[in-house]
Amino acid sequence: METLRVALGSRAYPIHIGAGILDAAELYRPHLAGGTAAIVTNERVAPFYLERVRRAVHGARVTEIVIADGEQAKSWQTLNRLFDDLLKGHCGRDTLVIALGGGVVGDLAGFAAAVYQRGVPFLQVPTTLLAQVDSSVGGKTAINHALGKNMIGAFHQPRAVISDVATLDTLPDRELRAGLAEVIKHGFALDAAFVDWLEANVEKILARERGALVHAIRRSCELKARIVAGDERESGSRALLNFGHTFGHAIEAGAGYGAWLHGEAVAAGMVMAAELSVLIGQLKKIEVSRVRDLLKRAGLPVAGPALAPERLMELMSLDKKAAKGKTRFVVLEGIGRAALKNGIDDAAVRAAIVAAAQ
Amino acid sequence: METLRVALGSRAYPIHIGAGILDAAELYRPHLAGGTAAIVTNERVAPFYLERVRRAVHGARVTEIVIADGEQAKSWQTLNRLFDDLLKGHCGRDTLVIALGGGVVGDLAGFAAAVYQRGVPFLQVPTTLLAQVDSSVGGKTAINHALGKNMIGAFHQPRAVISDVATLDTLPDRELRAGLAEVIKHGFALDAAFVDWLEANVEKILARERGALVHAIRRSCELKARIVAGDERESGSRALLNFGHTFGHAIEAGAGYGAWLHGEAVAAGMVMAAELSVLIGQLKKIEVSRVRDLLKRAGLPVAGPALAPERLMELMSLDKKAAKGKTRFVVLEGIGRAALKNGIDDAAVRAAIVAAAQ
Repeated sequence: METLRVALGSRAYPIHIGAGILDAAELYRPHLAGGTAAIVTNERVAPFYLERVRRAVHGARVTEIVIADGEQAKSWQTLNRLFDDLLKGHCGRDTLVIALGGGVVGDLAGFAAAVYQRGVPFLQVPTTLLAQVDSSVGGKTAINHALGKNMIGAFHQPRAVISDVATLDTLPDRELRAGLAEVIKHGFALDAAFVDWLEANVEKILARERGALVHAIRRSCELKARIVAGDERESGSRALLNFGHTFGHAIEAGAGYGAWLHGEAVAAGMVMAAELSVLIGQLKKIEVSRVRDLLKRAGLPVAGPALAPERLMELMSLDKKAAKGKTRFVVLEGIGRAALKNGIDDAAVRAAIVAAAQ
Repeated sequence: METLRVALGSRAYPIHIGAGILDAAELYRPHLAGGTAAIVTNERVAPFYLERVRRAVHGARVTEIVIADGEQAKSWQTLNRLFDDLLKGHCGRDTLVIALGGGVVGDLAGFAAAVYQRGVPFLQVPTTLLAQVDSSVGGKTAINHALGKNMIGAFHQPRAVISDVATLDTLPDRELRAGLAEVIKHGFALDAAFVDWLEANVEKILARERGALVHAIRRSCELKARIVAGDERESGSRALLNFGHTFGHAIEAGAGYGAWLHGEAVAAGMVMAAELSVLIGQLKKIEVSRVRDLLKRAGLPVAGPALAPERLMELMSLDKKAAKGKTRFVVLEGIGRAALKNGIDDAAVRAAIVAAAQ
């Protein structure tokens, strides 16, 4: 098992990464001083792992909350069910909320923990690669609103993250690859050496080799944690983590939410952002090939859905409107060196979309 | 106008107290950098003050949200309406939420600001004495749940508080007195000299003399702010602010919510807590008379509702259950010197209730 620490002052916390650590009681015990825990998980994850986590918190009074699988669970309705169950279970202010599952469970249970009785401690036990490398670092929690994703939420740091790579054995291939897109993003945006390592090890990750998974997750978390520690409330450098995401969000929306997984949309979005970097003179064309090739080897899409560039542009401008005209693009100034650029004109953006489709 | 500062590091903020400052544009301007504001108020307050605040934020794009009057507005339903209106008004992450009204508006709008897009800035413009001396200091925001008051919420500090004592001219007498109960509580719990001042000036406050109101609010805020600055998340000394509240909550619940105003219940609760202090040998009997006399002069109840002591005990023990057996009482060790006491036996509590009814 490896442990790294997210440096956030009084809110600092450890991330434990290893194989078979899901039921390591000693990782849970330091956070159970209150004697009460609420395990939040979903219908897909519960049959595999709920009982093991329950045993790991042996001795605590436990409330189990099993929600439906899928993004639609990030709703008011489900959140209210959590509050009902927590209150009926007499969960007080020292209750430890344990989020066992992927990003949806983490976002929802994390937000519930952020506001239940004005905040209770919580633990992330992510069981998808995406959650292990992304949503478990940074403290972002949220639910969706009919008018926008993640519109209601809070920054609420977990007390600890327990990432068991063995839980990825039950993750569908497509979701593993989608999670890998964010790992690859961390490399291209922030760390050229990590890109080299990924180019040498991508097949091992896809084969779910434990050692390769631990390293990929650890390095991703380190890179993200370093950024988050410098910008907890997302006012500046944290935006670099959005490499590929401006295009990616438009792809997700354009294809219809759910048709493309987030990671798939980000993969195609990274190719577009890399092409854009070339068009504005920040990146060599040959470096776009490295982005494209690694994503292909990871089994990820490198071109967007069959949509007119104008449609993607329109969707991005809607996004822009929501952000009061402040859409900036994250471009690459080299492999592992992302940068924020304002004032990129529409013609270049359009050309990047076209170039990515070639 | 007087200004005091709540010292909370990077979340420090000023409280401005004066007569006629509601539309002082210069107090709003520093917080309007984003160019967008959402004014949340209720049907009772809007006709008096909404237009004046709107003029004070002249130049900003403004969304107005007028909710129903009363405690039942602290609900999911109303909160969701706020989110709908904020999103429909294209309010981005730099929108300033302005809470114009009493405690309900402040708690609700403050919580909306705490979680809308993971947190936007907000301004408190309290128009009741209770809100000016209590809920506007400390950053507590919340809504109610069917199974408990203030069960869902967040700590979210305002950017500034603008307390215009002239707005108290439209406040019903009964509510003025209920707010005064919290002012008196600050004195007896924390500051003997303030008790002396209140004994000399209570009639001026009831007559709404501007100078007396400004001083009473300023000193209350100072006392509360000092406690909050030392214990922002309510883990220790902040509990001293709950003098009279353990009994008070039971009185409110026993009388049926809404029958007694919070401040009225706290007034009678303070007499019980003072009697309890005598019974456990911490306070002289003569000092209970000072508590009782000042409350009487303020037109506040000094005895609980017509309920058997056993019923109040039962309601307090329910409260205790919710807090996992950790109910502590705030007692007085002298005028202006509140202290937390654990392990007080039921017989003394019962005797205190009986003594207060004499």
